[in-house]
Amino acid sequence: MNFAARLDKVETSAIRELFKLLGKPGIISFAGGFPDSAMFDVEGLREASRLALAEQPGAALQYGATEGYDPLRAELAAFLRAKGVERIDPSGLIVTTGSQQALDLLGKTLVDPGDKVIVEGPTFLATIQCFRLYGAEVISAPIDGEGVRVDRLEELIVQHRPKFIYLIPTFGNPSGALLGLERRRRVLELAVRHQVLVVEDDPYGDLYFDAAPPPSLLALSESVPGSRDWIAYCGSLSKVLSPGLRVGWLAAPSELLARATMCKQFSDAHTSTFAQATAAQYLKAGRMPATLAHVREIYGQRARTMGEALRRELGDAIAFTQPQGGLFFWARLTGAGGKLADASELARRAIGEGVAFVPGAPFFATEPDTSALRLSFATAGLEQIEEGVKRLARALA
Amino acid sequence: MNFAARLDKVETSAIRELFKLLGKPGIISFAGGFPDSAMFDVEGLREASRLALAEQPGAALQYGATEGYDPLRAELAAFLRAKGVERIDPSGLIVTTGSQQALDLLGKTLVDPGDKVIVEGPTFLATIQCFRLYGAEVISAPIDGEGVRVDRLEELIVQHRPKFIYLIPTFGNPSGALLGLERRRRVLELAVRHQVLVVEDDPYGDLYFDAAPPPSLLALSESVPGSRDWIAYCGSLSKVLSPGLRVGWLAAPSELLARATMCKQFSDAHTSTFAQATAAQYLKAGRMPATLAHVREIYGQRARTMGEALRRELGDAIAFTQPQGGLFFWARLTGAGGKLADASELARRAIGEGVAFVPGAPFFATEPDTSALRLSFATAGLEQIEEGVKRLARALA
Repeated sequence: MNFAARLDKVETSAIRELFKLLGKPGIISFAGGFPDSAMFDVEGLREASRLALAEQPGAALQYGATEGYDPLRAELAAFLRAKGVERIDPSGLIVTTGSQQALDLLGKTLVDPGDKVIVEGPTFLATIQCFRLYGAEVISAPIDGEGVRVDRLEELIVQHRPKFIYLIPTFGNPSGALLGLERRRRVLELAVRHQVLVVEDDPYGDLYFDAAPPPSLLALSESVPGSRDWIAYCGSLSKVLSPGLRVGWLAAPSELLARATMCKQFSDAHTSTFAQATAAQYLKAGRMPATLAHVREIYGQRARTMGEALRRELGDAIAFTQPQGGLFFWARLTGAGGKLADASELARRAIGEGVAFVPGAPFFATEPDTSALRLSFATAGLEQIEEGVKRLARALA
Repeated sequence: MNFAARLDKVETSAIRELFKLLGKPGIISFAGGFPDSAMFDVEGLREASRLALAEQPGAALQYGATEGYDPLRAELAAFLRAKGVERIDPSGLIVTTGSQQALDLLGKTLVDPGDKVIVEGPTFLATIQCFRLYGAEVISAPIDGEGVRVDRLEELIVQHRPKFIYLIPTFGNPSGALLGLERRRRVLELAVRHQVLVVEDDPYGDLYFDAAPPPSLLALSESVPGSRDWIAYCGSLSKVLSPGLRVGWLAAPSELLARATMCKQFSDAHTSTFAQATAAQYLKAGRMPATLAHVREIYGQRARTMGEALRRELGDAIAFTQPQGGLFFWARLTGAGGKLADASELARRAIGEGVAFVPGAPFFATEPDTSALRLSFATAGLEQIEEGVKRLARALA
């Protein structure tokens, strides 16, 4: 059978191969990219799904509009308004099958083979592959502890004239980095100056541990003249409520949103109305603030515990910025004291010691940093985190 | 903003525009393509979703494998085995977000720009657009009352060397036609002889009114040597249980299935695990046979009523084959007695009389038949069908 040439551009990731090893008994995993299922508000979702089938069973189980289930679109618009996006109404967003589908629709809608797309180096792996499947040449803009380096970003925009720029400005995957307020303004100014679309992926913005992060690019765009026309925002309930619902959304300028909707019509017709009606009932019930407060507290404890353990057990052999939210530590092996500086080799040794993490190199579209690694603290308890970091130290020794 | 060139190949359909008129009070609609929500087994689905959250809440709400939720894959394989597909196990299919996504994944996996794809003329509208978005040139193979004309199909295969052939052999949309057993065998033989993939879309096969239809191409492939390697089968719970779950599946040769899975990873990661777990519990509970018996009976009554009314009220001004299953009448205005033979014009007049249907021309990828029309009997009660057909006769008069 002859497959399409676009498949030659992507591969099943090295990370997927690693995940096959995680079934090993007794292994402590810092490798995942998912939230802790022990924190799902099962009771709240059970009640929400019950109400969805009690109040409007026909609508919850029937075909629905490609744009999404109206009561959910209204709740999501209110959710964004509560986070500082003043000018948003339900017609300004469409519901997607997870935010992964929002990325896919942006690729389908915007990318011609050979088009350039700028992403952070490192960025979310599935994004790189998703855009490459539409023929994009993916360019990396370097980051530091405060997110993307805006000076370098502008140079790359001028050099490559990209179709769009994809950023995870708030507690990025895998970087964990938080783009500062001043850099956010500059990104929006760049968008206007160079007339280039900025895609803001924001699955982690609600998962802050202490102070709330700066406003999203979408929220901030209202105070940077002209920039709202150049922002597409991908949101998701996956990290804060439940990935299994597959409910995300795309807010974008109307012309782009209309075309993404047309593409969605031929991708999956619409997102599960049953899942959408359940999510709508959940948001309407007002349980989200308490759920968010809970997950912020637990993830915050885990992040502090992991940071302290890493400093204590690995010392100057590892360097990282303590994350202020999200699910990830992004660290670099320094090689200090002649210790191992190759994260892939460490990952192999670590499996032998009974701890797993993901080496950082695959997260780079170009110029991989082989000393980088990603550690998730999301699904391990405090004692597991302490023990896992000790194992990591043994693997490094 | 510059959009991708692939969007130039598609358009929001004429049918979508028509649907905007359906909100008019008092209108009787034969226009829809969806099942009657009054027939959804709400009680069964409520219990299934309750069990999904009671038994394995973590799994039902967490990220899942791209291939699908294993208990559902096992139930779907058993569902296919019960319909005569002997050699199928859970690893032989993946769960998709409705069968629309299966079509999208086939397009993404197989179609290079300029590739030819043969479909029935007429066929499901969203299929044509879906494949065109990947750059396919869509060729129509003519049908008659027994489905695709296999002699013409072979000529077109030889002429165009298509990437694949897409058929809805059982109660097709919009044709309502049933491909006979002998033609099914010949299609499979063609697949082997010309080494060409046949995509069988089968959302309606369970909706037969009297005798069960011949085995699906997938089931029959086991008795046509070599043909199983050339069959991809798209199934769906949408027409028989609930479209709002968005649960479909793709069974295909392993090499193709692996690549479709990779594409799905970057399309929506996986189908809603909550919806999948609900569907799995529903199938496991053994309610499907009674549900199918119920919908077959109701749709069968409606189809008989519509056929009798059409013959009585429109006489020789309309020609059709009485459907033996599915949701649709496919008819042709004969122009007898000098009556209108243009279905688009009739659709406009019919709206004025208070009845809606879909003209047939948009269902043709090429060479539209302007005298054709599609009438769905699925969502109207018996009295509404009688009254709607009378209005249709007035519009034609």
